[in-house]
Amino acid sequence: MKNFNYSIPTKIFFGKDQIDVLASQIMQYGSKVLLVYGGGSIKRIGLYDKVVKILQNNGITFWELSDVQPNPRITSVRKGVNICKENQVDLVLAVGGGSSIDCAKVIAAGYYYDGDAWDLVVDPAKIQKVLPIASILTLAATGSEMDFFAVITNTDTNEKLGTGHPDFNPKFSILDPTYSFSVPAIHTAAGTVDIMSHIFEVYFEKTEGAYLQNRMAEALLKTCIKYGKIAIEEPENYEARANLMWASSLAINGLLGYGKKSVWSVHPMEHELSAFYDIIHGVGLAILTPHWMEYVLNDTTVDNFVQYGVNVWGIGDTEDKYQIARQAIQKTKEYFASLGLPATLREVGINEDKLEIMAKQATRNGKVGNFMPLDSEDILNIFNASL
Amino acid sequence: MKNFNYSIPTKIFFGKDQIDVLASQIMQYGSKVLLVYGGGSIKRIGLYDKVVKILQNNGITFWELSDVQPNPRITSVRKGVNICKENQVDLVLAVGGGSSIDCAKVIAAGYYYDGDAWDLVVDPAKIQKVLPIASILTLAATGSEMDFFAVITNTDTNEKLGTGHPDFNPKFSILDPTYSFSVPAIHTAAGTVDIMSHIFEVYFEKTEGAYLQNRMAEALLKTCIKYGKIAIEEPENYEARANLMWASSLAINGLLGYGKKSVWSVHPMEHELSAFYDIIHGVGLAILTPHWMEYVLNDTTVDNFVQYGVNVWGIGDTEDKYQIARQAIQKTKEYFASLGLPATLREVGINEDKLEIMAKQATRNGKVGNFMPLDSEDILNIFNASL
Repeated sequence: MKNFNYSIPTKIFFGKDQIDVLASQIMQYGSKVLLVYGGGSIKRIGLYDKVVKILQNNGITFWELSDVQPNPRITSVRKGVNICKENQVDLVLAVGGGSSIDCAKVIAAGYYYDGDAWDLVVDPAKIQKVLPIASILTLAATGSEMDFFAVITNTDTNEKLGTGHPDFNPKFSILDPTYSFSVPAIHTAAGTVDIMSHIFEVYFEKTEGAYLQNRMAEALLKTCIKYGKIAIEEPENYEARANLMWASSLAINGLLGYGKKSVWSVHPMEHELSAFYDIIHGVGLAILTPHWMEYVLNDTTVDNFVQYGVNVWGIGDTEDKYQIARQAIQKTKEYFASLGLPATLREVGINEDKLEIMAKQATRNGKVGNFMPLDSEDILNIFNASL
Repeated sequence: MKNFNYSIPTKIFFGKDQIDVLASQIMQYGSKVLLVYGGGSIKRIGLYDKVVKILQNNGITFWELSDVQPNPRITSVRKGVNICKENQVDLVLAVGGGSSIDCAKVIAAGYYYDGDAWDLVVDPAKIQKVLPIASILTLAATGSEMDFFAVITNTDTNEKLGTGHPDFNPKFSILDPTYSFSVPAIHTAAGTVDIMSHIFEVYFEKTEGAYLQNRMAEALLKTCIKYGKIAIEEPENYEARANLMWASSLAINGLLGYGKKSVWSVHPMEHELSAFYDIIHGVGLAILTPHWMEYVLNDTTVDNFVQYGVNVWGIGDTEDKYQIARQAIQKTKEYFASLGLPATLREVGINEDKLEIMAKQATRNGKVGNFMPLDSEDILNIFNASL
């Protein structure tokens, strides 16, 4: 196990009607709020009206940044920064999924930065100070409600990049599983894969002796596998939505990664697909993950796949190692298919045209991942296998 | 899954040589420290000298409260409170295991309380304000390094009671597994059982749909089972000490209990044994736990034991439910024996004499536990079975 410094300061208010704490929590930081949200879903489920009423009843002034896109754009961030600067906002409150929260995070940093907010995405070291951030979550997926990362897209440059800062941890997040009842099947499926991928990114790693972390990762993987399917079949199943929502936070808040030294593999590859084709992030992950697994399976990694097959999928551990590994990968593929997700790039409108440039872009800062470090040729091979 | 409010604010510095952060972390809270520790073990391993040197080199003034007992006494707390009040201490730093940390916590609360510190143990509602607390851990067991509880013994009244406050969460804890290399086998064993018992107390509970929490509990139980034995056989095995140490914190910091409504069973029973006979807490737990399991096994609880047997002990899930449950309890008993722990009360010098009064004392505030609520007669039966 590696040394680590643990700090997970976000307060979580989990469960039905926890929105009751909203006003008192906000007022610990001030009374001027920027509300950041996406399309109409929070209006359709009545959450927008509820939030607005709470703010108004408690004398909290607010401004709004709406229409934040699923792969949130730097243009939205810039608008948000301007509103905050003009009005000396005290707290940025995202209402929605990871896109709104990620957007809120970079807005909160942009408030204290004199240059263009895109600088803060390209170079996280430029983030010096951050406004308090909070969230009301409506989609179990990115884990942004309890981590210090944000991913922002620049459509001018076809770049989708991650950035982060310790103060990107929201001060508090409200996780009411009922707000995710109306999430459509495709986003429930993509969100589940996103959570699983966050776990895979730290689980498939070679640190010796991180036994506890690996067993915890398996606990969360089993949770996703069980409840992803149920949530699609019964969208208003509270138990399923609750387990997925809490799994989304725990998968990426640091808990599974502390004590390991994971460098992610599949996310950086997928970010190129979303940057160039604006596909749903979790869909891209579902397509790439099994092919990445097949590609990196070799004598130095097979034991990790055996552990995965035996402990997560219940495959008997008496068989041949490679047989167990391949069965585990096959089970993963079948599970994603069972969620109704596409299995090939062509199904989401991606053909050969830009594979090479995307593979190059993914390695702009060097090889990708550390489970098996991938150069642009490796990534191109994985993209081609995923066609 | 039940609603919950998550807050785990303690910063953890985990790993070899993390003591390097000590001075800078303390100085965030001030420069006057009360050092709280037990017997000679921290002197024997050179940790005391190291801490003193760091404090001196950084201009941090300190006072000392030594000889804190394994079941820490209110008399030690009172001494510590006096030192803090006389010298306007800024932070209470425990160096040792859970006893020193628990003692430090109540000292930190006593600083702001005008009456006798025992009042704060009897009635946690009297705790209004708490000095910053920090710890350097040397024993994987109580989890006090990352939770908001403390257990204090009053030998005048034969009472061992738990108390707590959100500000009892240490500001930071340094967890260097090498500091536990010299822990003797009996305390390694007792500590492992203490961790397992903290997990059992929340795992054996009936909240519906807390699937994620149950899988995480099993992940930690497997960690204890694997590494408890190794740590006894190879005291300087870093991997074993690291996994146990991190498990001790995660077992009780709230993570496993959030979303459930656990009321503990075995700990309150054991506290009477320690209060009357001053035995090692984990030893008492090892003796009582299998008998408690046998006693509460019935048609309403059998499924929990099946889950335990199948997921933790790998017992095939095709057999008769009661057979699986009894096998799981037997495995638990055998595991504790394999750690070299006694299996009966008589082995630790406890006979029939005080069983009845201890059973009565355990239920002074009503029935114990909520998995199967136990009255004094139930507890007496469990004590008798454990003789």
